[in-house]
This record gives sequence, structure tokens and C-alpha cells, in this order.
Amino acid sequence: MGIIPDSVNRLIEELARFPGIGHKTARRLTFHILGAPEKNATDLARAVIDIKAKIRFCTICGGITEDDVCGVCQDTKRDPRLICVVEEPADIYTFERTNSFSGLYHVLGGVLSPLDGVGPDELNVDSLLERVSDGCEIIVATNPSVEGETTALYLAKLFNERGCTVTRLARGLPVGGDLEYIDDATLIRAIEGRTSL
Amino acid sequence: MGIIPDSVNRLIEELARFPGIGHKTARRLTFHILGAPEKNATDLARAVIDIKAKIRFCTICGGITEDDVCGVCQDTKRDPRLICVVEEPADIYTFERTNSFSGLYHVLGGVLSPLDGVGPDELNVDSLLERVSDGCEIIVATNPSVEGETTALYLAKLFNERGCTVTRLARGLPVGGDLEYIDDATLIRAIEGRTSL
Repeated sequence: MGIIPDSVNRLIEELARFPGIGHKTARRLTFHILGAPEKNATDLARAVIDIKAKIRFCTICGGITEDDVCGVCQDTKRDPRLICVVEEPADIYTFERTNSFSGLYHVLGGVLSPLDGVGPDELNVDSLLERVSDGCEIIVATNPSVEGETTALYLAKLFNERGCTVTRLARGLPVGGDLEYIDDATLIRAIEGRTSL
Repeated sequence: MGIIPDSVNRLIEELARFPGIGHKTARRLTFHILGAPEKNATDLARAVIDIKAKIRFCTICGGITEDDVCGVCQDTKRDPRLICVVEEPADIYTFERTNSFSGLYHVLGGVLSPLDGVGPDELNVDSLLERVSDGCEIIVATNPSVEGETTALYLAKLFNERGCTVTRLARGLPVGGDLEYIDDATLIRAIEGRTSL
């Protein structure tokens, strides 16, 4: 398709790098930008540049912030003895949307994955060791994947030894889900973790 | 969610302006940019700025180009007596992907839509009148919507009077489609337009 102007092709390629955005969607987005007011395009470009320039990692939890310490870690109303351990900074906002967690967070920056060369040293564990004290509760909120489970077990061993309670998010039926479409592994966990009414 | 840094929120808002991209996807894309190398972000921002700076409308067909005249209109191997009339510049590339059209294009810049205040004067029709000569074929490739059909009928009347053949894209079953899922209107068109084997 040599008839598409270079600058258009280049933007399509850049947009197609995004996860979940194929060439067809990238082309649609590109033509949307072409048809949109000049200001929208400038604002978008500036926002992309800004985010890389301004955002850094919170020196305490490893989340993202424009300051040294993120908004959650600065919040004195939160319980410092309850720490939710997540894989990525984005996971923090998934929890925050629920408005039902009053503790702090800690970002691991990944999960144990020997095949990808990620061992304990590659994760943000040392700074978590410094943050916890005797009697803390660590909620391990890594994804329910094999690597996430392995990481949870590793953290459980490490922090139980230091007198912390280590918990894991419950597994079971998603709210609004349908028994007919549930996979076996989830159903087994739901039976194991059944609660009394 | 006041704990999300401003610059992150701003990029989420900018990305959520795209058609088909909601806040959830915009957030995912934003965190992808945050995690991607600095160069990718700069390249993306530059591509967005570039496209607005470099792209203009072809003075002949109204398609997009970085020059005065677009690649298709410059191509001397194409048949100037066969003109495919489309709504938007993006439609040109949908046709070009098929590698099966050897004529030229003409971009209307929309369709007749009295409710939105779009009449014949708002469309790029005058320059099409200048391009055609007696015996030309005009393929009206507006979308199969009410407005698209109205526009097609309008163009048919206008160009038939000038001695042009005016045709419309065939309507019928999409290739690979399933009769079970076809809507009634399409099926009626498919019966009407049946071809002999």
C-alpha cells in the first residue's frame, strides 16, 4: 500500500505497537486523529511526552507518582500494618477503584519466572522487608497464574518467618458470573473455599 | 481516584477521546506507554504532530497526501474514466487493499444529511463535476446507510444528466458469512440481486 503517505503509515505503526491494537484499529485511530482538531493532536502528543517526563516510581511502595512519594503512601489515614503486594503499578488503581482497601501497597515489579530470568533479586522485595514490622499483614495480590502463585508462596515463606501474617486474595466465582461458563479450576477453588451462610 | 497522578489522568482522558476506546482501555494503553522505552513515547508523540503538520487534501480527489496531488491521482496507469466516489479519505485505502480497482477516487467528505445540516453544497461535488467527461463511470461507494443511499440517488441523478454511467456497489451476503445470522434487509437485497450460475 505504497499510496498511503509516509507520515500516516508511521503513526499507524506506532499505534499498532499497543497491546490489543491491531493494524486495522491503528488505521482507524490514525484517520480519527487526521479528522480531529489540531488542538486534540497537540494535546495528545504533549500528554504522551509529559507522562514520560514527570512520572517516577514512589520511593516507598514503587507505585507511580509525580513526587518522591505517591499519594497513597502520603495518606496518613491509611493502615501502615496492612500491605497489599501487587505486580504492577497499574494494579494499585484497580484496588483503589473499589474504595474498600484502607491499607498501603507495594509494587513487586513482576513475578518470579525462572524461564524469563526473573528471580527474587529482580523483584522489589528488599524494600518490602524494610517496610514490614512484627504483626503486619501482607496481602499477596499477584495474578492467579502459575508465576503469581509461585511468587505468593515465596513471599509467604519469607514474611511468615518475620512474624507477619501473609494472606492471598480469595478465589471463587466472579460476581455476576454463570456456573455454566465457569472453568473447572475455579469451581474447585470455589468449593474448597466455601463459606457458611 | 485522586491518587492517580495528573499527567497520567490527562493521557487517559486524551486516549479515551478515540472512538471505540473507553476509559478502561485508555488506562491500559497509558500504563503501557509508562512501561515502554522513552523512545517509543517520543516516536508516538512526533508521529501525531507530524501527521497534522504534513498531511493535506489532494487538490484533485480530496484524498490525503503529503504533496499537492495524491499517489493515486499521480498514477498514470489508472483509468481516469472510472471514478469511485467515497465518503472519507480512509475509504480509499479500504479499496486499495483489495488491489482490484484500477480507477481513480473522489472523496465527498461526508454524505447528505439534512438533520445534521449537510446539503449538496457541503459536499465535494463541484470538483467531481469538473473531473468527469461524457462516458465516465461513477461508482458510488457511500456506506449502505439511509444517508449513503440518499447521496447515491442524488449523485446518480446529477451525473446521469451529464452522460455518465452511475453505478452502486453490490449488496448481498458477505463472503464467509452465515445465512443464519444475516439480517432481513441484506437477504432481500441478495435475492433481488441474484446472479445466474
